[in-house]
Amino acid sequence: MVRRSEEKTVEYKDKNWGGEGITTIRSLLNSPEEMYGKGRAFAHSSLEPGCSIGFHYHKGDGEVYYILGGRGEFNDNGTITNVQAGDVTITHPGQGHAMLNTGGETLHYIALILYE
Amino acid sequence: MVRRSEEKTVEYKDKNWGGEGITTIRSLLNSPEEMYGKGRAFAHSSLEPGCSIGFHYHKGDGEVYYILGGRGEFNDNGTITNVQAGDVTITHPGQGHAMLNTGGETLHYIALILYE
Repeated sequence: MVRRSEEKTVEYKDKNWGGEGITTIRSLLNSPEEMYGKGRAFAHSSLEPGCSIGFHYHKGDGEVYYILGGRGEFNDNGTITNVQAGDVTITHPGQGHAMLNTGGETLHYIALILYE
Repeated sequence: MVRRSEEKTVEYKDKNWGGEGITTIRSLLNSPEEMYGKGRAFAHSSLEPGCSIGFHYHKGDGEVYYILGGRGEFNDNGTITNVQAGDVTITHPGQGHAMLNTGGETLHYIALILYE
């Protein structure tokens, strides 16, 4: 099947784990059924300039971000580092992460959460 | 951790399931260990104009393509349809798919294979 439209696009204004501003999430799979129970998120997400995902830990699952465009500051389990298009961030179960759009353009990324 | 470079980028010249030309695959996760045994591919792939992924079936796993840019013709388990940026194709276990770059630019997509 082919999913065309902006199905399941959600704007989190107050739920982005304590971050600033708006996080826009387009779910690409209607998890968990479409992920065969193997994970709980496969999404194209974005942060506008100055917006952020607040620091949070992962328990029982790990999350990968694949940066598609824009520039950000990534908190890699406590270590701050810059990220840009082409970078892959991996947060294993038990680790935490956060991300802030430090650039002037929208920060786009793919997010994948798989169970441990 | 953050994976910066073009790690594990592979060009398949004769292995793209009987398709035409070159398929470029950048593995974002070094599966299956980094996928916690839940799948076997999470990659940023691309097809140059005129190049294709030949038709093939999936057994024991399903594959999702998320089209990032370019235009293509997608064989959705026997039904031909056009795809472009923003489209999500879902091929469940037991189904088959193929894709041809019918545009003038590189067709970029994210590929995710999860076990059934």
